Amino acid sequence: MSRRTIGSVRTDLAIEAVEELQTQTDQVPPGVLMDQYQSFPGVHVTHVDVLDESAAQNMGKPIGTYITIESQALKKRNRTVQDRLSETLSSCLQKMLGKGSNDAPILVVGLGNENATPDALGPRVVNLLLVTRHIQEFVPEDLAGKLRSVAAISPGVLGTTGIESEEIIQGILSQIEVGAVVAIDALAAREVNRLFTTIQLTDTGIHPGAGVGNNRPPIDEKTLGVPVIALGIPSVVHAMTIASQSVGILIDKLRSSDPAYAQLGELGAAERGQMIQDALSPVVGDMVVTPKEIDLIMREAAQVVAKGINSAIHADWDEESIAEMMA
Amino acid sequence: MSRRTIGSVRTDLAIEAVEELQTQTDQVPPGVLMDQYQSFPGVHVTHVDVLDESAAQNMGKPIGTYITIESQALKKRNRTVQDRLSETLSSCLQKMLGKGSNDAPILVVGLGNENATPDALGPRVVNLLLVTRHIQEFVPEDLAGKLRSVAAISPGVLGTTGIESEEIIQGILSQIEVGAVVAIDALAAREVNRLFTTIQLTDTGIHPGAGVGNNRPPIDEKTLGVPVIALGIPSVVHAMTIASQSVGILIDKLRSSDPAYAQLGELGAAERGQMIQDALSPVVGDMVVTPKEIDLIMREAAQVVAKGINSAIHADWDEESIAEMMA
Amino acid sequence: MSRRTIGSVRTDLAIEAVEELQTQTDQVPPGVLMDQYQSFPGVHVTHVDVLDESAAQNMGKPIGTYITIESQALKKRNRTVQDRLSETLSSCLQKMLGKGSNDAPILVVGLGNENATPDALGPRVVNLLLVTRHIQEFVPEDLAGKLRSVAAISPGVLGTTGIESEEIIQGILSQIEVGAVVAIDALAAREVNRLFTTIQLTDTGIHPGAGVGNNRPPIDEKTLGVPVIALGIPSVVHAMTIASQSVGILIDKLRSSDPAYAQLGELGAAERGQMIQDALSPVVGDMVVTPKEIDLIMREAAQVVAKGINSAIHADWDEESIAEMMA
Amino acid sequence: MSRRTIGSVRTDLAIEAVEELQTQTDQVPPGVLMDQYQSFPGVHVTHVDVLDESAAQNMGKPIGTYITIESQALKKRNRTVQDRLSETLSSCLQKMLGKGSNDAPILVVGLGNENATPDALGPRVVNLLLVTRHIQEFVPEDLAGKLRSVAAISPGVLGTTGIESEEIIQGILSQIEVGAVVAIDALAAREVNRLFTTIQLTDTGIHPGAGVGNNRPPIDEKTLGVPVIALGIPSVVHAMTIASQSVGILIDKLRSSDPAYAQLGELGAAERGQMIQDALSPVVGDMVVTPKEIDLIMREAAQVVAKGINSAIHADWDEESIAEMMA
Repeated sequence: MSRRTIGSVRTDLAIEAVEELQTQTDQVPPGVLMDQYQSFPGVHVTHVDVLDESAAQNMGKPIGTYITIESQALKKRNRTVQDRLSETLSSCLQKMLGKGSNDAPILVVGLGNENATPDALGPRVVNLLLVTRHIQEFVPEDLAGKLRSVAAISPGVLGTTGIESEEIIQGILSQIEVGAVVAIDALAAREVNRLFTTIQLTDTGIHPGAGVGNNRPPIDEKTLGVPVIALGIPSVVHAMTIASQSVGILIDKLRSSDPAYAQLGELGAAERGQMIQDALSPVVGDMVVTPKEIDLIMREAAQVVAKGINSAIHADWDEESIAEMMA
Repeated sequence: MSRRTIGSVRTDLAIEAVEELQTQTDQVPPGVLMDQYQSFPGVHVTHVDVLDESAAQNMGKPIGTYITIESQALKKRNRTVQDRLSETLSSCLQKMLGKGSNDAPILVVGLGNENATPDALGPRVVNLLLVTRHIQEFVPEDLAGKLRSVAAISPGVLGTTGIESEEIIQGILSQIEVGAVVAIDALAAREVNRLFTTIQLTDTGIHPGAGVGNNRPPIDEKTLGVPVIALGIPSVVHAMTIASQSVGILIDKLRSSDPAYAQLGELGAAERGQMIQDALSPVVGDMVVTPKEIDLIMREAAQVVAKGINSAIHADWDEESIAEMMA
Repeated sequence: MSRRTIGSVRTDLAIEAVEELQTQTDQVPPGVLMDQYQSFPGVHVTHVDVLDESAAQNMGKPIGTYITIESQALKKRNRTVQDRLSETLSSCLQKMLGKGSNDAPILVVGLGNENATPDALGPRVVNLLLVTRHIQEFVPEDLAGKLRSVAAISPGVLGTTGIESEEIIQGILSQIEVGAVVAIDALAAREVNRLFTTIQLTDTGIHPGAGVGNNRPPIDEKTLGVPVIALGIPSVVHAMTIASQSVGILIDKLRSSDPAYAQLGELGAAERGQMIQDALSPVVGDMVVTPKEIDLIMREAAQVVAKGINSAIHADWDEESIAEMMA
Repeated sequence: MSRRTIGSVRTDLAIEAVEELQTQTDQVPPGVLMDQYQSFPGVHVTHVDVLDESAAQNMGKPIGTYITIESQALKKRNRTVQDRLSETLSSCLQKMLGKGSNDAPILVVGLGNENATPDALGPRVVNLLLVTRHIQEFVPEDLAGKLRSVAAISPGVLGTTGIESEEIIQGILSQIEVGAVVAIDALAAREVNRLFTTIQLTDTGIHPGAGVGNNRPPIDEKTLGVPVIALGIPSVVHAMTIASQSVGILIDKLRSSDPAYAQLGELGAAERGQMIQDALSPVVGDMVVTPKEIDLIMREAAQVVAKGINSAIHADWDEESIAEMMA
């Protein structure tokens, strides 16, 4: 789980960064293109393009494309909508992958800690993928070259391996041919209602701690030399974010209810942010906010993502004939 | 996980209820006795006795004894202090159990949902207990009557069984002889720094939703007809609680920093509570705050509790000779 | 996991008991009716009716009906056939349940140990059921009485609870109204190719250790006072069984290959069984034979069974509208 | 899990290969040195040195040292003996590591599939290690150079990653400095009583399928360029092995009981092996034999191994001060 900070609140989602800037200026920030549509009833897709360096600075997000797929289906355990979500994810991912050569082997990387549920999205998805790199030689001749080669790895987290994920991936790329990397990671959101309702796809890769003085290496096309698509679902809001938002909401409420509280508005955002940080940080520490039934929801989320990836990559195949071949 | 409410914040801990009242009046509430000591360096024990009905109303806790054992050992993974914690728990539990006959069979009940990590304390502890009811007949004759009979069950939660835990326990008591019940449950705290740093023991049993209009049946001596000791560790703070506290802390800070904010103090606690509830409830919903590494910490917590219970109940035995006999 | 013995080999499957007797006499045993059909391509159903006490003695199985559903789908991870398997299971179960009143509440019991994978079928299925007993009051009025009331429990195993499952079920029946019990359990087979390819349904309940000097109480209509349907899937073959079979196969092979070995045939089955028991029991002990990927296969098996039960019980409902109501 | 074959039975244990040869010739095979002692009551240590290529061919094991530590403690859950086992493992491992430079960083590799219990030893051990490579810069100055640098990875299995473990390890070695590799893996034994009672350490690395026409790359000093110590515990016996042994035992029994069966002895071992293979292979297939409580025993085994490795590598440190530093 990487993270970044806007004011005092952290988000990994480009769409939340846009919304934050929009609340301040009432318009889409300069240098940013935004486009929205429904792929299915109940499934909303938003494209955000960060066009230049100035917009990137402003957003706290690198230049590139960010696709957000939104739906309540994961949380509500609605299978029908979950299948539509997988299908939407599949077609968005195909478009991003399509920029590279179509038959290059793909390496899917499941970032995060399998043994810490809120951080386990990546490894759980990897466990559900149809991996085919090692069975290429068993593909019947008339189909040769049609079953896309996929490898997958869950490199673990720095705290339990002592090795940066980026180092492990670099190492694998030094040994095997890879055309593109798809990196899966659990994300941190700013809004509680984003938890398990949003999937973000981006061609900018993963930038841990961008802008927060964190020197951990990015996992992107520049460092790895091949296209890197990052795919994530927010699973936590930092408790500090909740604390900070609560204060903001109450201040707004007080100001609108009684002119005597008008002066609260004079507190600048930055100043307020610092005061909140100082006051609350010792109280809420490193805690995270999650749904209590996170074990169950995470399982459903992993299934939806894995189904979307399998279908995007092995578009011309059905799962059963692959399973048969691997048996 | 049961819960109750103080102002707008929920706590299952008697010690937090006392603290809340103390901050208002600067003294231990009337009808409440409180006693504190260290059992070991780094392990603090507090006895709270709620003596009469008026104190019980005031505290929102039934008449009875509440023992709180506090230590940073669970979170810090310090084995040495964890062992001291188990030992302290063991001797506190022995004292509470001692009120009943010493050789009566004990039923340990692991409340909560094994498949939702923050709620899994009870079932995890049950999995680690030395259960002996079924091997009484194999005990060597010279030791007969010395190995205490222990049974244990994890009844599941209403949402997955459709049956109240209390009904299942009642049912078991109708079939087998039981001298006392020890009920283990994950708790909700008000303060983040209570999470996995506090063990509460009480002879009042478990009262789900006492005072919050919740009609679920209590699990206590009155309903079951045998003494019921409840043992819990706080594993979550409700996100609503964090939100509410944050606001309180900032208001205090503002008031003390600038006389212009003095009027904020005029907002009564109840009024403030309602305003916070209205404003924040849609934002934070049913979310809970937990440590991100909860999977790991929960495992350590279950081990400490199980070790304490095993040692309290099978005081004259070592684990290995029991394990040998059960093999 | 219960078990019984035929000669020196153990099986929980009525169909294997019939087959054993058939190999000796080349015909269906007297007092036994047998009927076979395909419900779908790749899904075979066999009804075995044990009609009288003499047949029951002969078979080592109580008088009653045994339905066996066979398919390679669980092991081969073929979703299409898995769905047909669920559908077949659903209609067989409905017929058995239909003998009782249609609207009586059902208690599903998941026998076995959740934390020992080969024994975890029951608890895993229970975790996937749509339990409705506690939401009856929330059913919209026009649908009242149409959503069947279902409760479910995983009572654990004697070794970890110290209480017989039968005692726990009796206890629950003393507290809540139940029209029928469906008991799920992992079974032991005699043939390796039965593992995870067979589902057995029977109206005779569960008889742990019938005929092997085991005094554990049965879970059946006679003890509980309500109809008890047992549903199981074989997940292990006892290593002793494999050992014994291997010897039998080799002896047959030797005899048919060389007349000099003819005398081996003179060794009676019982004598041979005892010799094998004496020689091999110290070597193979209590070990069980399972597929190496049992964790994965068990998950699929639990899903197929849960889907079949949900569909049999809530025939007029779809999963989503129930999930919506429970949210 | 790698494997090799002796006659028709597979073993990964050098000590079983020696025993097999000893039963044929009644002496330690030429070119093999063998030495035995007790490190503690109940803990037996055997050194087997394979000295030359002819002995290696004979044994089916590469030239090198094999240390076997034997004890019933893992299966019997005896903590006291488990601690002695960890201590013995620690000192044996220190000796093997000592051949290399003492302060070189160590990479521990957990081979096998975390999600298939019998194959999960490696990943489970990795999860319990004290990994320090990433905290070297935080070590207090006066202790600098004294906390040994350890990294660890669970590369997954070919079937779920599509990448050979050897490729992943090679990749990591291309990125980070490593002085020695310790590779943990679950093993296959020939004798059931070896399951979870034996730890094997060897400086020859891992040779999957040596001698069985399997071309998977070895993980050893020759391929990796640094010393590779392999550490394993047998968790399965192949069902085929059990079948084959059973036949052998019965034949021996028959021959010794009745001269009429003497001719059975004329069946040569190879011939008998082939006949058994042909007759039984369709029956027992790819099944494995394990203890039914494997989930529990595997957990204990992983703890014992992890404790031994942690203690061997961080000899001058206690766990708590490392944990403190990492917090």
